[in-house]
Amino acid sequence: MIGQRLNNQRLDHLPTPCLVLDQAILRRNIAAMAAALARHGVPLRPHMKTAKSIDVARLALAGQPGGITVSTLAEAEYFAGHGITDLLYAAGITPQKLARAAALNAAGADIIVITDDPDIAAMIGAMEVPPRTLIEIDTGEHRGGIGPEDGALEALAARLGPALAGVMTHAGHSYAGRSIADMARIAEAERTGITRAAERLRGLGHDPRIVSMGSSPTALHAAKLDGVTEVRAGVYMFGDLFQAEIGTHGLDDIAVTVLTSVIGRRPAERRLLVDAGGLALSKDRSTESVPVDYGFGLLLDAGGRREFGHSVICRAYQEHGVAEIDPAVPFPDLPVGAKLRVAPNHTCMTVAAHERYYVVDGGQTVVAEWPRVNGW
Amino acid sequence: MIGQRLNNQRLDHLPTPCLVLDQAILRRNIAAMAAALARHGVPLRPHMKTAKSIDVARLALAGQPGGITVSTLAEAEYFAGHGITDLLYAAGITPQKLARAAALNAAGADIIVITDDPDIAAMIGAMEVPPRTLIEIDTGEHRGGIGPEDGALEALAARLGPALAGVMTHAGHSYAGRSIADMARIAEAERTGITRAAERLRGLGHDPRIVSMGSSPTALHAAKLDGVTEVRAGVYMFGDLFQAEIGTHGLDDIAVTVLTSVIGRRPAERRLLVDAGGLALSKDRSTESVPVDYGFGLLLDAGGRREFGHSVICRAYQEHGVAEIDPAVPFPDLPVGAKLRVAPNHTCMTVAAHERYYVVDGGQTVVAEWPRVNGW
Repeated sequence: MIGQRLNNQRLDHLPTPCLVLDQAILRRNIAAMAAALARHGVPLRPHMKTAKSIDVARLALAGQPGGITVSTLAEAEYFAGHGITDLLYAAGITPQKLARAAALNAAGADIIVITDDPDIAAMIGAMEVPPRTLIEIDTGEHRGGIGPEDGALEALAARLGPALAGVMTHAGHSYAGRSIADMARIAEAERTGITRAAERLRGLGHDPRIVSMGSSPTALHAAKLDGVTEVRAGVYMFGDLFQAEIGTHGLDDIAVTVLTSVIGRRPAERRLLVDAGGLALSKDRSTESVPVDYGFGLLLDAGGRREFGHSVICRAYQEHGVAEIDPAVPFPDLPVGAKLRVAPNHTCMTVAAHERYYVVDGGQTVVAEWPRVNGW
Repeated sequence: MIGQRLNNQRLDHLPTPCLVLDQAILRRNIAAMAAALARHGVPLRPHMKTAKSIDVARLALAGQPGGITVSTLAEAEYFAGHGITDLLYAAGITPQKLARAAALNAAGADIIVITDDPDIAAMIGAMEVPPRTLIEIDTGEHRGGIGPEDGALEALAARLGPALAGVMTHAGHSYAGRSIADMARIAEAERTGITRAAERLRGLGHDPRIVSMGSSPTALHAAKLDGVTEVRAGVYMFGDLFQAEIGTHGLDDIAVTVLTSVIGRRPAERRLLVDAGGLALSKDRSTESVPVDYGFGLLLDAGGRREFGHSVICRAYQEHGVAEIDPAVPFPDLPVGAKLRVAPNHTCMTVAAHERYYVVDGGQTVVAEWPRVNGW
């Protein structure tokens, strides 16, 4: 059962703005990641922070052990409710969230939490039924975690006691890479950092069964993953313009686009006004820092094809997007109401404004409608 | 009845991230706008695109005729379901949305639509029961609409026939103003443009009963509103850092903040990691272009006070925000789990990620929970 099936509804009939998910591309991206990790014999714990959909999770879990990563406890509750119980909640846990995770675990889930804080470690260690806990390691992103050589590791492990299940890291700074060689170099630093922390724990008499690393760029481009027990990645499922620019995948591998309608025409200024603005697309401007700047997204035709060259959404008001048409292509002679699509800068942000995916399979017929879990 | 009442729950107990709405500030902002327009004897048609809440709409409508502005048909459906039937849908209508608006009107709503397109005008004019329609006029924003002197006005009016109810404009370029004098100048251009279009229609034998203009800055700072029949504004209800920087209101007039928890501490780097990231705050960077750049938001204490100087969210990952503490203040000695608040850059974008407001009344006790309508 994959979501609600629709009877051959055409994209043309959907209310705009909305998300179109091409499952042909999604399946290809999932297969590419599975193949990349299979080379190393390391399993994937897909990060559902981007897709937030049980239907997508089922596809991403094909051939994998069955555990997932989540970015919110709302996701944990949702996926546990759909039978996925092995959940890694990949943001530093707080006392309040620890109570919520423990309640979920008491109801049948098996949420793994992470920490880099001695007070929280002591609190977890003192619990009657603590969740499995990973110590967060910083392998260069400088967001959360302690360094692999940090002396605090010993005290954290001691305080956690039997709750200690291993270590995890996220080389989010791989997003600052600009080539496959950059990704491979950052992946190796991520791997050596996390395996070093695990080795230190073993030296202290602990048993870090989980040695978890990952980001889409480093998961796809790691040269080796020796000593790593699982990899986490999420954005690879959908892709986006930013990931295409940094070399994670190609422009043809973007599975999610925003369907939009023309709501105004200014041929003399070579501009179209569309009903996908800052809410439908997000205000993310991550392509500002990569070779090709796509504004707030790249304009595609209703079939999702790159028919308009470098025509981008140059301004994003709340519900209005201004599409500036590339001078190298003819001005699209489209009436008000005509459908277009926009490829997102940063898919995690764009999809978050929407409640569901309208799923196509390479064409323009909606074959399913898949809900998302938003909020916290 | 204003939303679900909560029995003296403390902010401390709320799951984070979430929205805190201080109704004391909200009421003050609403009173300030009402007073500004009362000077001119012009009524307000509050724009609900920011608040998207029936509870806020009821406050904003006090002493006003009762019509509102909406930015999506989802809002129109929601507010009509709550008994507000006089609705101006302020984005260019498409054939598909025209059908949806007509269906709502047949069910008892009275949605006013806008257009600047001759084909759409002809389609509306040919409807058996057309919605009241306004011609969109461009008074300097250059987003939608025709110019006040544009020859196309005559044909649009003729095609609309009896559906023509008037003209509307939005001087969104007032956001590029940087002083009250700027706002007043843009407001006067907005007023002269929209009244000129109305005058031309009268000269053609039409009766433009609605002459609608507005944006929060121009509504608050217009020197005169002669010839205007209503003003639209929305963001003034909540305010934000951007509006404070351009002079629409003061920093103490921001009614909505994001409640967040500390999830990591890096005292040596003078950084705190919080659980309000790009989704909870939005990736809007509008304060980049104003005198004071607040990153992704200004850090406040749990009571909403500016206790940390210019400490801002300098990086926003999906669920992680990095707060950089102002060197001029002591590093906040807060444990993981401690609550803080973040004032938003652009409140319309920030609140859109959330399903509800937790309402306080000047203190830290939750007195109500008000739902929002999101999506399209």
